[in-house]
Amino acid sequence: MADYAAPTAPKVTTGPIRGSRKIHVGPLHVAMRAIDLEPKCGEAALNVYDTSGPYTDPTALIDINKGLVELRNSWIRDRGDVEEGAQRAVRPEDNGQLGPDRSGGVEPFPNVRKTILRAKPGMNVSQMHYARQGIITAEMEYVAVRENMGRTAIANLVRDGEDFGAEIPDYVTPEFVRSEVARGRAIIPSNINHPESEPMAIGRNFLVKINANIGNSAVASDVANEVDKMVWSIRWGADTVMDLSTGRNIHDTREWIVRNSPVPIGTVPIYQALEKVGGVAEDLTWEIFRDTLIEQAEQGVDYFTIHAGVRLAYIPMTAKRVTGIVSRGGSIMAKWCLSHHKESFLYERFDEITEIMKAYDIAYSLGDGLRPGSIADANDEAQFSELYTLGELTKRAWAHDVQVMIEGPGHVPMHKIKVNMEKQLESCGEAPFYTLGPLTTDIAPGYDHITSGIGAAMIGWFGCAMLCYVTPKEHLGLPDRDDVKTGVVTYKLAAHAADLAKGHPAARLRDDALSRARFEFRWRDQFNLSLDPDTAEQYHDQTLPAEGAKTAHFCSMCGPKFCSMKITAEVREFAAKQNQAADAFIAASSAEAEAGMAEMSEAFREKGGEIYLPTT
Amino acid sequence: MADYAAPTAPKVTTGPIRGSRKIHVGPLHVAMRAIDLEPKCGEAALNVYDTSGPYTDPTALIDINKGLVELRNSWIRDRGDVEEGAQRAVRPEDNGQLGPDRSGGVEPFPNVRKTILRAKPGMNVSQMHYARQGIITAEMEYVAVRENMGRTAIANLVRDGEDFGAEIPDYVTPEFVRSEVARGRAIIPSNINHPESEPMAIGRNFLVKINANIGNSAVASDVANEVDKMVWSIRWGADTVMDLSTGRNIHDTREWIVRNSPVPIGTVPIYQALEKVGGVAEDLTWEIFRDTLIEQAEQGVDYFTIHAGVRLAYIPMTAKRVTGIVSRGGSIMAKWCLSHHKESFLYERFDEITEIMKAYDIAYSLGDGLRPGSIADANDEAQFSELYTLGELTKRAWAHDVQVMIEGPGHVPMHKIKVNMEKQLESCGEAPFYTLGPLTTDIAPGYDHITSGIGAAMIGWFGCAMLCYVTPKEHLGLPDRDDVKTGVVTYKLAAHAADLAKGHPAARLRDDALSRARFEFRWRDQFNLSLDPDTAEQYHDQTLPAEGAKTAHFCSMCGPKFCSMKITAEVREFAAKQNQAADAFIAASSAEAEAGMAEMSEAFREKGGEIYLPTT
Repeated sequence: MADYAAPTAPKVTTGPIRGSRKIHVGPLHVAMRAIDLEPKCGEAALNVYDTSGPYTDPTALIDINKGLVELRNSWIRDRGDVEEGAQRAVRPEDNGQLGPDRSGGVEPFPNVRKTILRAKPGMNVSQMHYARQGIITAEMEYVAVRENMGRTAIANLVRDGEDFGAEIPDYVTPEFVRSEVARGRAIIPSNINHPESEPMAIGRNFLVKINANIGNSAVASDVANEVDKMVWSIRWGADTVMDLSTGRNIHDTREWIVRNSPVPIGTVPIYQALEKVGGVAEDLTWEIFRDTLIEQAEQGVDYFTIHAGVRLAYIPMTAKRVTGIVSRGGSIMAKWCLSHHKESFLYERFDEITEIMKAYDIAYSLGDGLRPGSIADANDEAQFSELYTLGELTKRAWAHDVQVMIEGPGHVPMHKIKVNMEKQLESCGEAPFYTLGPLTTDIAPGYDHITSGIGAAMIGWFGCAMLCYVTPKEHLGLPDRDDVKTGVVTYKLAAHAADLAKGHPAARLRDDALSRARFEFRWRDQFNLSLDPDTAEQYHDQTLPAEGAKTAHFCSMCGPKFCSMKITAEVREFAAKQNQAADAFIAASSAEAEAGMAEMSEAFREKGGEIYLPTT
Repeated sequence: MADYAAPTAPKVTTGPIRGSRKIHVGPLHVAMRAIDLEPKCGEAALNVYDTSGPYTDPTALIDINKGLVELRNSWIRDRGDVEEGAQRAVRPEDNGQLGPDRSGGVEPFPNVRKTILRAKPGMNVSQMHYARQGIITAEMEYVAVRENMGRTAIANLVRDGEDFGAEIPDYVTPEFVRSEVARGRAIIPSNINHPESEPMAIGRNFLVKINANIGNSAVASDVANEVDKMVWSIRWGADTVMDLSTGRNIHDTREWIVRNSPVPIGTVPIYQALEKVGGVAEDLTWEIFRDTLIEQAEQGVDYFTIHAGVRLAYIPMTAKRVTGIVSRGGSIMAKWCLSHHKESFLYERFDEITEIMKAYDIAYSLGDGLRPGSIADANDEAQFSELYTLGELTKRAWAHDVQVMIEGPGHVPMHKIKVNMEKQLESCGEAPFYTLGPLTTDIAPGYDHITSGIGAAMIGWFGCAMLCYVTPKEHLGLPDRDDVKTGVVTYKLAAHAADLAKGHPAARLRDDALSRARFEFRWRDQFNLSLDPDTAEQYHDQTLPAEGAKTAHFCSMCGPKFCSMKITAEVREFAAKQNQAADAFIAASSAEAEAGMAEMSEAFREKGGEIYLPTT
């Protein structure tokens, strides 16, 4: 047994995102970030969607030993359809004592709840169930405010985009959220045992979301590192986080994460079940799996990846693939099916799983266990056979009012991406699609955040609702802190590029604000409006580090002597005064501009020899 | 005057790319790289396109004081249509003594030619001119071999892709190259004064190419740094390099670069002309510009960006833009036109420029001076008005058999990219399109290699022939060595993703080879087949550093206990033996696999606590 340091105030990353101010909008206090701009520009602060939770709120008291405030506690209880029960006792195998010790040891979360919630007998506590009853929940109201990013409905809004049949409204109302959830086109993952979560929606008619994967760490004698992976991911924009821990301490690690997470947490329960049987897939049983579902349901996991579409008959279809089965969950089930030569127990017991899901409002993330692992295997028979089965399972889950999203590939060249989206929409009744990338080429390990960012942006445009990030370490190793940030920011920009192309009515506000700031040399505003203000400022400072350069009316590309932006100012004047003598206006505007730039020009000349960087 | 170190053997980056072997194919000794795979896999070496020139050839003697071997010297002279002449004397203003000193000083290239080549009076030495005469030049033959990457024609080739009307052949013949150049669908930039260059083609029916921009550096008291920027760019895959130097020492910097470059060099001559008039755009004259063209033509620049489409009438169209005119060349010409209230001298003198181009075989890169600088300004009237003018100029250049490509945007959201390609193909008669990105969102400064890599991959798929790279420092500062590499590799993967999607018949060979290596745990082969073997190996070693892990039959994601790849091996056996008893086969194959993995599993267990990385 490891000797743990006293668990007093472990530290995670806190403090405002540079240039942003936390705000809470409306009666539900929906969390957002406001970015204030330089007063001289005369523009209002820009509100942006914010996933970072209380960690970026200077007024919030953060103590990861206690967990977050339970935002949804009264919402859940006031509906009157839940009851308290004793939590299932933690067993040694829950922490994977049979598996390899990949962790330096994680101490138990000190503030574990004695009692948990479940639906009263015969009740269904899913958001979909309420939606279909015509009930607008607080979660739906929260989502509506959040998706509008604090803006009000705009009259005479001009839409610009190609949405491939999506039905994105000009303005999101709570009733719109309800109707989308009711018909299964959106989900709000919200386990009743995760009241700390800030409600969010995943669906093609909402902002495109992203997911970050984390897993247990070796050096977590300080458990803050564990929690900080999640905190770090959401700081940069992860809308949900999947805990893919394996090995030991799975249960305790997850408890730390869920209790401190303001975003929905997803897991792949078969991973933990496998640890419970010592890593031997053929030893898995329905009973062990079911028990794992209950264990995780009670902890508050918001969505489960269930690979119920890996049917026995599809497995031989992968034999001729270049890269066979690359999904870990898919391989586990394939091995089980082959070993027993029986149909998957996940498929056979699907309705029993659904009964559990609806007692806690856990959403299905129907896993794509047969997704392609290479360009060569994209869009093959195995992949699409599984997809059609996921469509069948979607309808079975919906019959119980249980929320569903569908996982998708993987590795797909650009010309084969769109048909993935089309087949998914058609076969799964527009249930939200949730893809990993897809990677558009196999030849760039080390850069797979980019090979996949390309595919992610495209499939997001076509209608994919959530994009699972890929880090630069994909295929090579385990991501560190920098890799996680790079993956999250890459996917955030891909999701935003998709929102723009779909014509989301609020998306372009931020692009335009940033472009105006860029054009007017409001450097601070440009940094603050960007997805990663720290990196933007750091890169700027590498070339023009002086504080004065932050207000300079030129940049390092052309310098003060000649400036494209200045010329455009002249063009504008010219256009405005076309009836006046051109020569007169140009002389005047030039003189004025020269005077304003004189001081900075001098500073620039003094350091003229230093504006290019050494090649290190 | 700076005191220079003795110019003895300045160093640039040399040595083979990791895991690659330089080869020279056929009677023209076309340079390529062969990647040898582990003998046990039984696969032949894979040949890949190689832009790195002699610098990665261990048998080549590199002396940047002398310059490269003149590969094309005899090809050019043997055609009998060139004559020698004295080089125009270098003048003080050629090195921009009037401009700001952005350089620490660049000494003159020590091996400057006393004589240069030009076409004999009345002759036209452009590749397009030869092509239209039905002549297949050595340059065209070289290109044909190079584009095939050493493969032979494949009978029964199965094509897979969507090429949007491109006519990519199964196998590239010299006659195909000739016909593409003759009709203007491809260019082979090949100034007769740059005989060091290895011929390459830019056209929608060839592999998608990429360009890297470099510029003079402040700290180049060691001129090797100057040359090394170019060498470093082509090492990672830049097909052409543009020298965008401004300030002082422009002439000498360019001489160093051209004499040592195996790839075509492009410039924007108006940049140098502006320095010659002290940075005052309105002082530019046709005579100064013309003299600059001659100066650069004699040095061997292969293509000129000429912003002849920025016509007086289009300038007011930019007045209502969010970001006005962001092209430096575009602003220079806009300022000139406004100041004089006259039509652009580049447009008025276009045919005179063309006469110069054809005497040296310099290709036009018709500049997009009015490209959008933000999502808000994409596809507007100013942009497309200029494009139509570029189409008109294309036909005027073609009337003189002068090669042309067309520059394109810029900042364009995904849903507006395709129409850019369609309008360009239609208005410019399928002349090659050469775009900067486009960036698909404005909100990610620091990550604009990715925002633009998305757009670049897409427009490459749609038919764009060359993609101008964007580095992470775009909009913020000047790229350093790491940024240049990141930009080049990002664009290389985007171009390859486009080749795959277009269905280029040779593109997928590399993806499939890498995926097989990945699936068979041939780690070395996976690294060597990747675009950046150094980074791939480094990332792998961060998690599993031991040499033994390079041959391990598992990776850091799942570890040795459970392995997806192993299960697929079982699936294959199962499929092969479906008529046998499944149980028997599974038991046998499992036992065999276990034995083979026992040693590595032991090693893995010993370091089990170290496979996750600390969050630093």
